[in-house]
Amino acid sequence: MSEAGATTAAVEDELARYGAMARDAMHAYLPEAEPRRHLWSLVAEYPGRGGKAIRPALCLASTVAFGGEVEEALPSAAALELLHNAFLVHDDVEDASLLRRGQPTLHAEHGVPLAVNAGDALVILAGAALRDNRRLLGTRLATRIGDEFELMARRTIEGQARELGWRRDVACDLEPDDYLDLIMHKTCWYTTIHPLRVGALIGSFDRVDLDSLVRFGFYLGAAFQIQDDLLNLLGDEAKYGKESCGDLYEGKRTLMVIHLLNETNGKDRRALERFLALERPQRTAADVAAIVELMRHHGSLDFAQAFGQGIAEAATDAFEAAFAEVPDSPERHFLRDLIAWMLERDA
Amino acid sequence: MSEAGATTAAVEDELARYGAMARDAMHAYLPEAEPRRHLWSLVAEYPGRGGKAIRPALCLASTVAFGGEVEEALPSAAALELLHNAFLVHDDVEDASLLRRGQPTLHAEHGVPLAVNAGDALVILAGAALRDNRRLLGTRLATRIGDEFELMARRTIEGQARELGWRRDVACDLEPDDYLDLIMHKTCWYTTIHPLRVGALIGSFDRVDLDSLVRFGFYLGAAFQIQDDLLNLLGDEAKYGKESCGDLYEGKRTLMVIHLLNETNGKDRRALERFLALERPQRTAADVAAIVELMRHHGSLDFAQAFGQGIAEAATDAFEAAFAEVPDSPERHFLRDLIAWMLERDA
Repeated sequence: MSEAGATTAAVEDELARYGAMARDAMHAYLPEAEPRRHLWSLVAEYPGRGGKAIRPALCLASTVAFGGEVEEALPSAAALELLHNAFLVHDDVEDASLLRRGQPTLHAEHGVPLAVNAGDALVILAGAALRDNRRLLGTRLATRIGDEFELMARRTIEGQARELGWRRDVACDLEPDDYLDLIMHKTCWYTTIHPLRVGALIGSFDRVDLDSLVRFGFYLGAAFQIQDDLLNLLGDEAKYGKESCGDLYEGKRTLMVIHLLNETNGKDRRALERFLALERPQRTAADVAAIVELMRHHGSLDFAQAFGQGIAEAATDAFEAAFAEVPDSPERHFLRDLIAWMLERDA
Repeated sequence: MSEAGATTAAVEDELARYGAMARDAMHAYLPEAEPRRHLWSLVAEYPGRGGKAIRPALCLASTVAFGGEVEEALPSAAALELLHNAFLVHDDVEDASLLRRGQPTLHAEHGVPLAVNAGDALVILAGAALRDNRRLLGTRLATRIGDEFELMARRTIEGQARELGWRRDVACDLEPDDYLDLIMHKTCWYTTIHPLRVGALIGSFDRVDLDSLVRFGFYLGAAFQIQDDLLNLLGDEAKYGKESCGDLYEGKRTLMVIHLLNETNGKDRRALERFLALERPQRTAADVAAIVELMRHHGSLDFAQAFGQGIAEAATDAFEAAFAEVPDSPERHFLRDLIAWMLERDA
């Protein structure tokens, strides 16, 4: 196995270990109650399908790297995973997605009404998990974490609104900077920045500057999202768990779409704009294949890959700045190794 | 003006007064931020359309009746109104409703994706309002209110799941007791029981037994819901603000529908079952008119009215038990007068 391959395997072992801890913590908040068939079994559906556990892993590793114990961060990690699952359920409705973690989306299986309601329940359960921090960490720290959580949720919802707005308004005048600004809100805040900050808050007992983690989290989250966009186009559907090219069917403004918008004119540009103006059910497999072909022809995939590598470089710099005072530890190593893993992962 | 008419007017004046206070408190939590057009203006939409303010009025009046000050309950009332508005947005999506407070529903105006996302934002804002209780009331009381809030939200979501499940499964084997059990979860907990309990918690500084308020709140909320169901069938659409007979178009199991299911057999029963098995877009105005005619013929409207009066009697008894130790005050009067108002209101 190559050195990079060994690192990838080690990162994935750690993700699995943290993921199992966070899953146990999260499952303790899923009620065994009635009505099961129309609510609580739906609520347990996505959490039971697993996931990469990037968010809780970041939160738990950051806690330990900054001097705390894993156990101190478990309710915060559970709250984040519960909110993440709530967002997945609602996003799947909003995006009319068909597959999630290799199985039909919740609304595809149970209809939009029960799915929206189950998503609401997951938000309330996240609040219940958060409130356990008082007992564990005391009022002052629990309050700080609650403030962070609220900020993160607002940012995420704002990012989602902006992206839905782009699609609704058939936005075509976009630059890579617009993409970065969007995913800062939509992805980074809750995938990387928030878990890192909460870990630092808990681990240091609110004694470190959280701002330096925004920069690192932003680049790390951007690398994650760019790779996610690429896997959506190129990945193995069975491994990746979402429908292949689902982002294109949904009309998402990925980095590749934005690159293509800026690289084409004449006939190709008109074909792309026409495609983006369609409603989702009108987009055919042939339409999607034609756009992927345009992307290959105009170098949009290479562009996104190269852009992702640049972002990963920036993430490494930002990591060194943010963790300059943090003593060496397996958790510090893991957080640094995550940068490369973001672009190497195939699921 | 009759004595009853004078009481109705006085109750409505008080509702307006409490409503204005709660609205001001709620509006302080609505951000003036970007993205406005795809998020925050949608979030402000239902709160800006007004409403009857029953929930905050109950919370504020209960606070004062139990010995507190109105100001102590404003964040709790605002949180409840924000969650109420979140539920309205999501329920309108789930029920495919067309009108809310006399105007198009949020999803009818902006599409399901942006509406679901705006509803999520309202839930997060409710949490922000709640967290202000710590400053105002101290950690212990704020924690108790947070627990009550979470319980209330869970009960409401469970009730909504049960009702959606009935419609999805075309449930026809239902009794009035099933209806009461449903609205205990779906309506009463968050419309009456929770606001009364939180008011008592704040007003008495957690020194009264909250269980007696469950009974009173249940009967009061049931009277509210039965009248709401009747107004939906018989009310003036312009005044009532929802589409006339919307419940029937949505296939809701109201008390009248359940009565009709139990009173009919043969041809009429089959016609009703066939109607309930239709999808909403398939139900025509002629279908709906035929069901209303069946209800008139079989006495379902009279039954629901009489049932509501019986429930109001039970509410009066429960009020006397719950408020036996509460000294006389204008707020105590108002809470008692609300019982009759629930059945007299025409909007």
